Amino acid sequence: MTNPVLVDVHRGAAIESMHRGALAIVDADGAALVALGDIDRPIFPRSAVKVLQALPLVASGAADRLGLGDAELALACASHGGEPRHAETAAAMLAKAGLDLDALECGTHWPYLDSAVRDLVAAGRGPNALNNNCSGKHAGFVCLACALHDGPGLRGWLRGYVEPDHPVMREVTAALQASTGADLATAPRGTDGCSIPTYAIPLRALALAFARVGTGTGLTPDHARAATRLRAAVAAAPYMVAGTGRFDTRVMERLGARVFCKVGAEGVYCAALPGRGLGVAIKVDDGTTRAAEVAMASVIEALVALDATEASFVHTLADVALSNWNGREVGRLGAGPDLRRALDAAA
Amino acid sequence: MTNPVLVDVHRGAAIESMHRGALAIVDADGAALVALGDIDRPIFPRSAVKVLQALPLVASGAADRLGLGDAELALACASHGGEPRHAETAAAMLAKAGLDLDALECGTHWPYLDSAVRDLVAAGRGPNALNNNCSGKHAGFVCLACALHDGPGLRGWLRGYVEPDHPVMREVTAALQASTGADLATAPRGTDGCSIPTYAIPLRALALAFARVGTGTGLTPDHARAATRLRAAVAAAPYMVAGTGRFDTRVMERLGARVFCKVGAEGVYCAALPGRGLGVAIKVDDGTTRAAEVAMASVIEALVALDATEASFVHTLADVALSNWNGREVGRLGAGPDLRRALDAAA
Repeated sequence: MTNPVLVDVHRGAAIESMHRGALAIVDADGAALVALGDIDRPIFPRSAVKVLQALPLVASGAADRLGLGDAELALACASHGGEPRHAETAAAMLAKAGLDLDALECGTHWPYLDSAVRDLVAAGRGPNALNNNCSGKHAGFVCLACALHDGPGLRGWLRGYVEPDHPVMREVTAALQASTGADLATAPRGTDGCSIPTYAIPLRALALAFARVGTGTGLTPDHARAATRLRAAVAAAPYMVAGTGRFDTRVMERLGARVFCKVGAEGVYCAALPGRGLGVAIKVDDGTTRAAEVAMASVIEALVALDATEASFVHTLADVALSNWNGREVGRLGAGPDLRRALDAAA
Repeated sequence: MTNPVLVDVHRGAAIESMHRGALAIVDADGAALVALGDIDRPIFPRSAVKVLQALPLVASGAADRLGLGDAELALACASHGGEPRHAETAAAMLAKAGLDLDALECGTHWPYLDSAVRDLVAAGRGPNALNNNCSGKHAGFVCLACALHDGPGLRGWLRGYVEPDHPVMREVTAALQASTGADLATAPRGTDGCSIPTYAIPLRALALAFARVGTGTGLTPDHARAATRLRAAVAAAPYMVAGTGRFDTRVMERLGARVFCKVGAEGVYCAALPGRGLGVAIKVDDGTTRAAEVAMASVIEALVALDATEASFVHTLADVALSNWNGREVGRLGAGPDLRRALDAAA
């Protein structure tokens, strides 16, 4: 099955590029409001499911025991820009677990945010693992470990926590399986950018998991409470889940708890729309974030009740002006006809 | 018509993403050796045609009159990384025309090369128009202007040279039309990142133009001499056409004059393979450079005579290992079955 075009890139008098993909919007009972393209093919959700992977951190009691606040819980769900506040918050989480950045197994990369790179350079410094966009998720795994291993020698016990069979990762994977309903023992497996496993899961199941996260329906009571707590944390500290200028931060700063959205690498986007009881999952076939963002903004525009100011803000993300190096508008990025029709029918 | 998958992205046990597109490989008489996907739909070639846009710089006599050397002519065909040598060479071209960077209308952006950004910051500086990846092309336009306007007041006459109807741009567009055979008066037009017009042209015509550039067949004698000179300049100074770590530079440093290849924004790649008398043009539908590079490397691997060392080098570009932040190989990027079949049949 060839997926439809979700997003078109216009330049001058022509369509310059196009992005195909699939979109699932389902309710917590699994009924599909939108099934555009092949929503039953397993795809790697990558970082879009960090909130599902953070459920055990809260459900285990570790977050309360260590006194993690909104900023820290939001960072546990984040692909952050590696900005100073992100790095400091990850360091604070590790300190609460009695450890430091040496415990992190996510690897190091320069911050996503260009100005954070330039600030580091200007200060004569380089990046460390705290700047890795996944450092909050990993710091969350370290905090979870405090609940799983209550004795001495945590540092040694923790080593290798990114491996699929480590007790920490088994707990994380179990939450992913419980919330999506997918059988991860038989799912195609890959390794993520930060070295933890990523399991291929159909968009239909991912959207269902986010509908559950938004409503609590279909989750265990512990996971339902954890989902509520994590959504509240991200709504209270949306800067922590992404960062300066990033889609997730901008959207949740404006729309608060009405949308919980999260990008993943390679063109994935997931969201919970609690007010509608819906979950959303998008995969752009070619792995491009710009298209996944436009598709997600189009979904929000169609399905979330917005006042005029909010609507015009979301529209700038759904119908994106492309400017050149002289600031001249040279094109636009927007939903293609198939996506538009599907959303019109669902609205 | 839905284009076939050119390039697959593998992760672990699954195909994570895929890139559709089209590929034309034709000889200088227009006979197609490969016609994969829709090669008759006009696409914006963007920076892939800089060598065609530089033909008047040489054909007009301006390059010789101003004493432009290999590095400068290669830079006129470049999308460079904004590194110090690139910026210095563009400044030298402008000085030969009696002007400076204020004449450039390409706009300013931070260098493409991350380490060049960090070097600028560490030196307490920001970018200027010389760091724009198109500064060499624009410096070439300024040099061309010296041949078109032989009197005083060049600076004033030059102003607005990026506009389609300016005498400089008319000359550039005429060369693009002559070499491709496309009727640009009726072609869809857009504005490029550096503010000059870009005209939508079918891949078949772009590949033909590159077969002509590689052989001289079908070009005017002046353009044929200019093409030979520009190809020789790029082969002599491949660092100038792109920069540190970039595909075009790496390939031409290794393969010299046997390949003239040039990337364009939004997933475009063009090449001349002079030894085979062929021109190549690729458009990845979704605009992704990583896929265009893999497709171009696959073409080179199939059609250019390579010794064992060269073949193993090109193979690293055609079958690309994807590593994560811990340096662990997590996936591969390579030609999909349709592209592989088409190239096997053509080899």
